[in-house]
Amino acid sequence: MSVPSRPPAVLLESRRSPLMVFSGQSNRPLAQAICDNLGVPLGHSTTEKFTNDNLIVHYEQSLREADVFIVQTFSTPVSDSIMELLLMIDAAKSASAGRVTAVIPYYSYARSDKKDSPRISIAGRLVADLIQEAGADRVLTMTLHSPQVHGFFKVPVDHLSADIVLSEHFRSCVPSAHEGVVLAPDAGSIKRASRISRLLDCGLAMIDKERVSDTEVVPRALIGEVDGKTVFIVDDEISTAGSLVETVNIARNMGARDVYVAVTHGVYSGPAIQRIAGLDVTQVASCNTVYVSPNKIEAAGGKLAVLDVAPLFANAIANIHTGASVSTLFT
Amino acid sequence: MSVPSRPPAVLLESRRSPLMVFSGQSNRPLAQAICDNLGVPLGHSTTEKFTNDNLIVHYEQSLREADVFIVQTFSTPVSDSIMELLLMIDAAKSASAGRVTAVIPYYSYARSDKKDSPRISIAGRLVADLIQEAGADRVLTMTLHSPQVHGFFKVPVDHLSADIVLSEHFRSCVPSAHEGVVLAPDAGSIKRASRISRLLDCGLAMIDKERVSDTEVVPRALIGEVDGKTVFIVDDEISTAGSLVETVNIARNMGARDVYVAVTHGVYSGPAIQRIAGLDVTQVASCNTVYVSPNKIEAAGGKLAVLDVAPLFANAIANIHTGASVSTLFT
Amino acid sequence: MSVPSRPPAVLLESRRSPLMVFSGQSNRPLAQAICDNLGVPLGHSTTEKFTNDNLIVHYEQSLREADVFIVQTFSTPVSDSIMELLLMIDAAKSASAGRVTAVIPYYSYARSDKKDSPRISIAGRLVADLIQEAGADRVLTMTLHSPQVHGFFKVPVDHLSADIVLSEHFRSCVPSAHEGVVLAPDAGSIKRASRISRLLDCGLAMIDKERVSDTEVVPRALIGEVDGKTVFIVDDEISTAGSLVETVNIARNMGARDVYVAVTHGVYSGPAIQRIAGLDVTQVASCNTVYVSPNKIEAAGGKLAVLDVAPLFANAIANIHTGASVSTLFT
Amino acid sequence: MSVPSRPPAVLLESRRSPLMVFSGQSNRPLAQAICDNLGVPLGHSTTEKFTNDNLIVHYEQSLREADVFIVQTFSTPVSDSIMELLLMIDAAKSASAGRVTAVIPYYSYARSDKKDSPRISIAGRLVADLIQEAGADRVLTMTLHSPQVHGFFKVPVDHLSADIVLSEHFRSCVPSAHEGVVLAPDAGSIKRASRISRLLDCGLAMIDKERVSDTEVVPRALIGEVDGKTVFIVDDEISTAGSLVETVNIARNMGARDVYVAVTHGVYSGPAIQRIAGLDVTQVASCNTVYVSPNKIEAAGGKLAVLDVAPLFANAIANIHTGASVSTLFT
Amino acid sequence: MSVPSRPPAVLLESRRSPLMVFSGQSNRPLAQAICDNLGVPLGHSTTEKFTNDNLIVHYEQSLREADVFIVQTFSTPVSDSIMELLLMIDAAKSASAGRVTAVIPYYSYARSDKKDSPRISIAGRLVADLIQEAGADRVLTMTLHSPQVHGFFKVPVDHLSADIVLSEHFRSCVPSAHEGVVLAPDAGSIKRASRISRLLDCGLAMIDKERVSDTEVVPRALIGEVDGKTVFIVDDEISTAGSLVETVNIARNMGARDVYVAVTHGVYSGPAIQRIAGLDVTQVASCNTVYVSPNKIEAAGGKLAVLDVAPLFANAIANIHTGASVSTLFT
Amino acid sequence: MSVPSRPPAVLLESRRSPLMVFSGQSNRPLAQAICDNLGVPLGHSTTEKFTNDNLIVHYEQSLREADVFIVQTFSTPVSDSIMELLLMIDAAKSASAGRVTAVIPYYSYARSDKKDSPRISIAGRLVADLIQEAGADRVLTMTLHSPQVHGFFKVPVDHLSADIVLSEHFRSCVPSAHEGVVLAPDAGSIKRASRISRLLDCGLAMIDKERVSDTEVVPRALIGEVDGKTVFIVDDEISTAGSLVETVNIARNMGARDVYVAVTHGVYSGPAIQRIAGLDVTQVASCNTVYVSPNKIEAAGGKLAVLDVAPLFANAIANIHTGASVSTLFT
Repeated sequence: MSVPSRPPAVLLESRRSPLMVFSGQSNRPLAQAICDNLGVPLGHSTTEKFTNDNLIVHYEQSLREADVFIVQTFSTPVSDSIMELLLMIDAAKSASAGRVTAVIPYYSYARSDKKDSPRISIAGRLVADLIQEAGADRVLTMTLHSPQVHGFFKVPVDHLSADIVLSEHFRSCVPSAHEGVVLAPDAGSIKRASRISRLLDCGLAMIDKERVSDTEVVPRALIGEVDGKTVFIVDDEISTAGSLVETVNIARNMGARDVYVAVTHGVYSGPAIQRIAGLDVTQVASCNTVYVSPNKIEAAGGKLAVLDVAPLFANAIANIHTGASVSTLFT
Repeated sequence: MSVPSRPPAVLLESRRSPLMVFSGQSNRPLAQAICDNLGVPLGHSTTEKFTNDNLIVHYEQSLREADVFIVQTFSTPVSDSIMELLLMIDAAKSASAGRVTAVIPYYSYARSDKKDSPRISIAGRLVADLIQEAGADRVLTMTLHSPQVHGFFKVPVDHLSADIVLSEHFRSCVPSAHEGVVLAPDAGSIKRASRISRLLDCGLAMIDKERVSDTEVVPRALIGEVDGKTVFIVDDEISTAGSLVETVNIARNMGARDVYVAVTHGVYSGPAIQRIAGLDVTQVASCNTVYVSPNKIEAAGGKLAVLDVAPLFANAIANIHTGASVSTLFT
Repeated sequence: MSVPSRPPAVLLESRRSPLMVFSGQSNRPLAQAICDNLGVPLGHSTTEKFTNDNLIVHYEQSLREADVFIVQTFSTPVSDSIMELLLMIDAAKSASAGRVTAVIPYYSYARSDKKDSPRISIAGRLVADLIQEAGADRVLTMTLHSPQVHGFFKVPVDHLSADIVLSEHFRSCVPSAHEGVVLAPDAGSIKRASRISRLLDCGLAMIDKERVSDTEVVPRALIGEVDGKTVFIVDDEISTAGSLVETVNIARNMGARDVYVAVTHGVYSGPAIQRIAGLDVTQVASCNTVYVSPNKIEAAGGKLAVLDVAPLFANAIANIHTGASVSTLFT
Repeated sequence: MSVPSRPPAVLLESRRSPLMVFSGQSNRPLAQAICDNLGVPLGHSTTEKFTNDNLIVHYEQSLREADVFIVQTFSTPVSDSIMELLLMIDAAKSASAGRVTAVIPYYSYARSDKKDSPRISIAGRLVADLIQEAGADRVLTMTLHSPQVHGFFKVPVDHLSADIVLSEHFRSCVPSAHEGVVLAPDAGSIKRASRISRLLDCGLAMIDKERVSDTEVVPRALIGEVDGKTVFIVDDEISTAGSLVETVNIARNMGARDVYVAVTHGVYSGPAIQRIAGLDVTQVASCNTVYVSPNKIEAAGGKLAVLDVAPLFANAIANIHTGASVSTLFT
Repeated sequence: MSVPSRPPAVLLESRRSPLMVFSGQSNRPLAQAICDNLGVPLGHSTTEKFTNDNLIVHYEQSLREADVFIVQTFSTPVSDSIMELLLMIDAAKSASAGRVTAVIPYYSYARSDKKDSPRISIAGRLVADLIQEAGADRVLTMTLHSPQVHGFFKVPVDHLSADIVLSEHFRSCVPSAHEGVVLAPDAGSIKRASRISRLLDCGLAMIDKERVSDTEVVPRALIGEVDGKTVFIVDDEISTAGSLVETVNIARNMGARDVYVAVTHGVYSGPAIQRIAGLDVTQVASCNTVYVSPNKIEAAGGKLAVLDVAPLFANAIANIHTGASVSTLFT
Repeated sequence: MSVPSRPPAVLLESRRSPLMVFSGQSNRPLAQAICDNLGVPLGHSTTEKFTNDNLIVHYEQSLREADVFIVQTFSTPVSDSIMELLLMIDAAKSASAGRVTAVIPYYSYARSDKKDSPRISIAGRLVADLIQEAGADRVLTMTLHSPQVHGFFKVPVDHLSADIVLSEHFRSCVPSAHEGVVLAPDAGSIKRASRISRLLDCGLAMIDKERVSDTEVVPRALIGEVDGKTVFIVDDEISTAGSLVETVNIARNMGARDVYVAVTHGVYSGPAIQRIAGLDVTQVASCNTVYVSPNKIEAAGGKLAVLDVAPLFANAIANIHTGASVSTLFT
């Protein structure tokens, strides 16, 4: 009896062809950039709204047996983004796609990951259930608010990290980064801050906060030492930048020499851009998991930088497609 | 029509206590009217948006073991309406509600009920799956675009009809209604038009249409006779009223004496109100399954009437709660 | 980074081998015709009844990893046909078939597609659930009673249309077909009739009916014009031909010159053949989705024609097997 | 045997009201007898066949919130019996029954309980899956071919035994039963035979058989001693009685003095009655789990007895309804 | 802390009768204490091992329609504890329990809540799936390693907190607790430590750690200030106490005046007791979610305290049973 | 139209590559032997216990898209063996294995296959559900306690038999085996015994037993003839050998000349080895589905033989992998 040995890589690559990448409406520039990195054209699909505000999605190419990746980030309008993704998954499955991977660079509902008050939904789990009910075979995402959200999915998830992108960005801005200190804006960010501080081989500090009412959280103390140092503030996302302003002010009050900010997801909603323009920091950087318009970048007065993670997603997609290990992408 | 008067509160309490009715944001006036008919207070819940555009719903009362009804119509913004309903269902189930009934007066995605072009989603089925995945134990709705959509749900559905409301409305406007003719705007409406014509004991006609491109449908012929008659146009919904204008014009051109319009769901999107204001009809009536603002009613110049179906929903809810037959509501 | 481009068609074809077609007992001649069109042998399987009337099915060939298609139409005895299909699907899956497609030329329970009286089953949905529970990965069928029944399935469905077969048949019989009129026997057939009338570029008419009791439906009016014209009656199926006799009589009474009938599914139960033999029509045609015995054809006195749809099914199966688009079959 | 007398109606109403019993077409006399024992009327439902051989079931009473029991045995035509049961379960669930119990006195497919040849279905498991997919909340049955079939269901099953009924019947016929010997017709019946022999406090013997081809099984030996004794042959069912004839002949050849036969399920198909009429036994008894017509009983020439198990089913239903233990029925 | 006194028995009986509490083998003293608080007897069930090491569980009382709570903590031997719980849930469901709540005071697998290395299982999710597959209708637990684990369950979860028990314990030991500092042993504990520090109205500090190999984690720094202060170390669990020894040593080295330790789950495996006996702390306290034998308490030389959470569990069970809000237990 | 004919075997073999075999801790020697037969290396994975007794499994190789077989027998400690298997399946699926087959040589819970007392779990079904919930795509096992247990799984099962191994072993020991008699220790073993007796072309006998209490079963009679003959005792497993001792004694008392014993699964728990050492038999043989240590073999004083079934498993795995028929292995 003799069983064939492992096939050469070239055979593996051809097994589940063709690879097709489609995009919803929420971040087509990222989807295009991913395709450019992969060397494949972005698939043709359209999404329209009926006059009664119903969404209708339509694939303009056959995708029978194809290995389909649908790129859709959960940015404003989030409910439309989710519904569009669900419709695209369902349409792909019923059009006989061989496998459907939901590529969700920013899974916004990951913030709803626990029951911190009674009678609410753990929406991060609900949305995961909906994606699976619609028919997704797997999920590719980046920097979930907490790593446990991975477990909300029963289908395989590849969870990319932007830590290296962020830390290398800091190092490129500040050659003496190892003399600085990474500051976590709250307890929830401490693990991420600790990882970045180890990558930079520098110090660590944290702000302890207290919820004083349903809508108000106030800082209690800065734990650690920032006086006279370059401070690196890291977080998973910035939305209105209200918390960021507060964190920067505390750092400044405690003697920080200069402040750099980098987050994975730059949502920049409401007064965010205006606040950043007036903020006493050298720079605020975020990845292109959420699309930031040129207008916003300009309005921020040179303080806003966008870091490109399309290569990371392209690599992950290629490895998923060919059956290579995605875990090697993180070393 | 004779709708049974509301049951005494004591009866409502008898079996699966307590009955609780909550409402999403899409049509709170209808939810309040239903509660008024039932003699119960509208439950306290809040829905907010986080700064990243995520929805968060919160019940402010314990609903352990309660028989919960959540009223949410699928009107603009539809994706938000659906997501809010899903979050409310999920939160109710995880807060240990005894049973959750989704009350969806206007199930907009029922229009996506078949695969009339390749590689689209039968979204009416997908949304049904999502509602069940979120945890709904049953559904109460009115005038689905096609009755087959009922079968998209595996949980029990009570499907109310507005036919009697519409036909009695016509009769109250036109005492000699039996001399008129009911006109179906297209083949898809012929069954509904036929039912109404039988209720009015009057004639029936239909417009045959042809799809000449993906976006354009043109009338081919009016089948039947409308010359010199009062014409009753019935349909399941009006959105931009573009098709309605065309139907009225054809009826007028074929000699209709006067024209009345009644539909279940008055979506009135885009130019609808302006078109109706200028339309050569006596009146356009729709039910309050979709909320129509006083501004719109005024802008329609007296042509718009709203028919109240809250008593129908209240009775159905009371019967579901007490285990009485809902089918008796239609006799 | 470089991802392999789309593989040549020849590679696609070899991916999910081998293709195997099996047949239940309900319409083996059609299954054999499909296999002849495909150029593959009909697979070996047996179905027997135990002495206690239990069915037992047995595959006599290994079907490990194969792409299995099981042809079974739902003709008399329908319950046996369904049970046999379910057993064949289950046996194929547990014998490790790679994929199982249920090919159901006539899905009879599609007629039970809505809840038109209380406390009945929407059996079209139930049977869809049973087929999926047994393990079918996809379904291939033709002319469902209403297109919404497609949505009763969660697995992918390819839904073939016989419209072109029927209209080309009419044209071959009546060169001046464009001067005729297509007559819909009731409101439920109007959409199909409208499509055929457009394919023939001819007129359209309809009979409006009224249900006067649970078991009796009477015609109210013929809407449209048939006087002096060739009339084409189309429907999805004929069973006892009682309704057909009535439709023909009305058409004749309204002055129809000659009458042709064509339906997808010729069930021909009870007195159907005798009625057709005595019917004042030129011809009644139906497709071979249901097997019609030579005896019946003879007894109909030359009035019965059978149209072959095996090539349509064979093409669909080949395209499903190779991952080509099935939607191209309809142009 | 002492079966508890029927509980007073007031008790039956106490917990999950009301108790409703419906019946399919396969064994209405048993359903009526169960209702008589329970003191409740048999529910009103109808089953018809459309002209295309589709089944349609209809409940003529509201069963909202009711505790519904549907009695349907799997006798000829078995496929119709199963489909009717599935339709009745589905209709009851969608009509909002509170709980649905499938009462299946003879679950014929229990014989298909293992994979004794490749590429067949374990149909006993498949049918269990179908019943659950249709919506049954629990199952009540009697004498499954093998007790392991119980585990094919995930919903709770109450599995009644007829052993006491059979053994008391023997004792009533043969006062000196303890001097007799129970004979198992094959290895599969040995456990049942052993239980009965212990209830009768008598001997045990078995016939060892060998399958010599797909369709032929021949006896190899009678293991044990029957010479000069009264022989009690027990089995789970008799269909054509072919195996029974053989067993009786062997027993006779080995010197059995007189022979009594009792089985749970008397299917009596094909030549069974004729064979029994000519068989050298004193009596053949079976329970009324399968309906045996008066004609058959007469044709058997006085050799056929029917044992009533309606009281056992009625008690089980009463206990299920009131939440009392069903296991106490077996002491 | 003020836990509401136990509700009168009459109230407990009122809704979903009867309430029954059973216990697995892992922590029967806690189950008994819960029953004592509830005023109900502990249910009779047995668990044995067959000679092939299979577990067999058996309920000795009828639990038809009962509201069943099964208390089982996941302590050594954990695999047996889980299997026993799964068997008890399954047996209860198939014995027709009305509702089954798994009461898991210490859900050990909550520690496996994320994918921190490739190709491992998120076992906290897997075990949640198993519990639901076995048939649990809801879950009651305490202090999950991370609050997100709540979302691993689809059934309702009541997640009790021991924070008030721990902080009140500290305050009872150290009247001037507000002058102390709560020390989080690592980043993962910072949120819990922050909550306790707010309850005590005292300071906060944290140890930053670094994983230097698969099996070794070393402290990098103590962030915050402990010099001359009473230090309160809090965590979710102690197993070998290796990490605890290190934390205490660092605190001592940094000048802590005296050290108190309190955790929810005292696993105390391997050298834990010996280490605690020799540890330079005033006291180590843990709750009785895991059973600690008198031998261990004695061996710890007076350093070990056990805090009783049975009243918390009893109240939660009473509220779940009667449909009262469990969230009020936390105020 | 032309569909490609069946591909040559060589193509089939390369389709689902690579084949990977991993092993849990319960029987690594068997897993290694299977790999040796297959000519593939045993995969690298580790299983450890955290200090809180939680299991953690880790694959050290990428298994993306691989055809994974996990060998784990259910021997002491059984609960750990099951949990480890579940974790390995889950980790493999979430690491994107293409297909996962659970290879369970000894499925111990098959003994819990029916409900022989009220309020117990049919654990054989529960464990099957758990394995499928964890994600197994198929199962390969040997000699289930009863063949019906096959039906507890919904995924495909390949069920190997050791009958030929056992009968050939007897024949190799006793050339005149056809003059002997196979003795079934109880009614449950009679079918297996009958099969072996036919393979040996020899006689058959059985011991009839009676359960006199929950824990005690006593023999009632030996049915058949063993006097002066070589007796072959066969069973599915031996655990404490208590029943075996009794069977041997009865055989001896009834005059057996010499006694040989062979079973599939040699559990040998508690006093088994000691009892066998003192047993009046020539030899006791079992297969290596359960690992038997050299110490045990030695302690049995030469009476214990182990039969190698690794080739059978290797062949089945190869055939499953290549899509060849497994049923051919039994001819």
